[in-house]
Amino acid sequence: MRSLPFAKMQSWGNDFIIVDGPVDLSDEEIARLCDRRFGIGADGVLSVSYSDPIRLSYWNADGRSAELCGNGLRCAARYVYDKGAALDRNFMVQTAVGTRGVKVAGDSVEAEIGRPAETGRLSIEGERFRLIDVGNPHAVTIVDDPHLTDVERVGAALQARFDGGINVEFAAVSADGVMMRVWERGVGETMACGTGMVAAAFAAMEAGDLKSPITVGVPGGTGEVRFRDGVAWLRGPVGYSFRGNVGER
Amino acid sequence: MRSLPFAKMQSWGNDFIIVDGPVDLSDEEIARLCDRRFGIGADGVLSVSYSDPIRLSYWNADGRSAELCGNGLRCAARYVYDKGAALDRNFMVQTAVGTRGVKVAGDSVEAEIGRPAETGRLSIEGERFRLIDVGNPHAVTIVDDPHLTDVERVGAALQARFDGGINVEFAAVSADGVMMRVWERGVGETMACGTGMVAAAFAAMEAGDLKSPITVGVPGGTGEVRFRDGVAWLRGPVGYSFRGNVGER
Repeated sequence: MRSLPFAKMQSWGNDFIIVDGPVDLSDEEIARLCDRRFGIGADGVLSVSYSDPIRLSYWNADGRSAELCGNGLRCAARYVYDKGAALDRNFMVQTAVGTRGVKVAGDSVEAEIGRPAETGRLSIEGERFRLIDVGNPHAVTIVDDPHLTDVERVGAALQARFDGGINVEFAAVSADGVMMRVWERGVGETMACGTGMVAAAFAAMEAGDLKSPITVGVPGGTGEVRFRDGVAWLRGPVGYSFRGNVGER
Repeated sequence: MRSLPFAKMQSWGNDFIIVDGPVDLSDEEIARLCDRRFGIGADGVLSVSYSDPIRLSYWNADGRSAELCGNGLRCAARYVYDKGAALDRNFMVQTAVGTRGVKVAGDSVEAEIGRPAETGRLSIEGERFRLIDVGNPHAVTIVDDPHLTDVERVGAALQARFDGGINVEFAAVSADGVMMRVWERGVGETMACGTGMVAAAFAAMEAGDLKSPITVGVPGGTGEVRFRDGVAWLRGPVGYSFRGNVGER
């Protein structure tokens, strides 16, 4: 592979390789970059094109182009701002699923995730789930203590009910906000899921338990979900892990 | 953390962060560098000090200083040679467990691992093991097909028999050499283990099945074990995954 400079960034342990675009990488090259032993290692790759507005392309670790990941958008927003490529701390980004607003404040980045909507309800093994669409499908259940939940078993059990699978959130709600664990389709339990944090906050709000803004804790850290005219924004820390260059000797 | 330039290298999927020494990193900093989501991600960190002979320090991913890892030594040898810090392709390296010879030939590196010795035999659940010391303890069993072996179960079952645990190799022997899987103490099944490859080759030689040099296949690739006056050398490919700098913005 030719020389490819990159930044490695993460938010709540969700990690991304960010490169300046346009790039012409095959599925196999993306998968190799994301391999944690033979490549750089990441959940996905983002390329930034410096048009107006800024354009982002996103690929999952398996090499396939994908709908944008909320935490990837937040990481890329800081990268773009730190590079001096945005005129203001608040700017718009063009993604595969439409234009999204971002707000960069040092190492804290807020991004427009989308407009959640409840699409149904479901009971399984005595647990009740709200089905919530955040651009991707989620099932949220309110529990007393997510640490006592068998996330793997229940998460896996729900998959058979939905074509293409579903992301599952186990959320405890208190006056302090939401504390949750998340099971991602195709992955299993993860340290964080941006759209899952939005889905859980939305479910708690719909149940009448909390009002915006809502603090949401996940195993990888803590963020804030704020609703503006029904649109969810997700805010929290974004960090550089390192910078590098692949393909050199 | 201050700016720290590094190379990320791997052999058969065993991966290492290599830095120029001397470095003064705490256990916590090493563990953070090796974290695959919040740091760079690696099985361990090597620092190179440019004395005569070259000196290597090694830390495991948990941050603790450790006896040198054979594949880490092979990666560091290529790094040192490519840097122009060795006068010859064959040179000596000072490690925590003594001086070791290395031979660099492009992306192929051979390193002196040690002098294996059989220390006993053991039967468990109908499988017979040779106990072999390669500086660290190994139990090797000859099987028809390692892919049909329950590596996790048998590997875990052996741990209770040994204070400090033991590495376990499941090796099939044919005219072409050894094809093996390995269970590492404290880790579980891995893609490669340098001393395990030596232990399996030694066991096959002791059983009278093969003569040096011996080709050894592991899930992460293929290497060669050669005995010179009873001392085992391990040869195979070593690659750069990327170069980077951590601690910058």
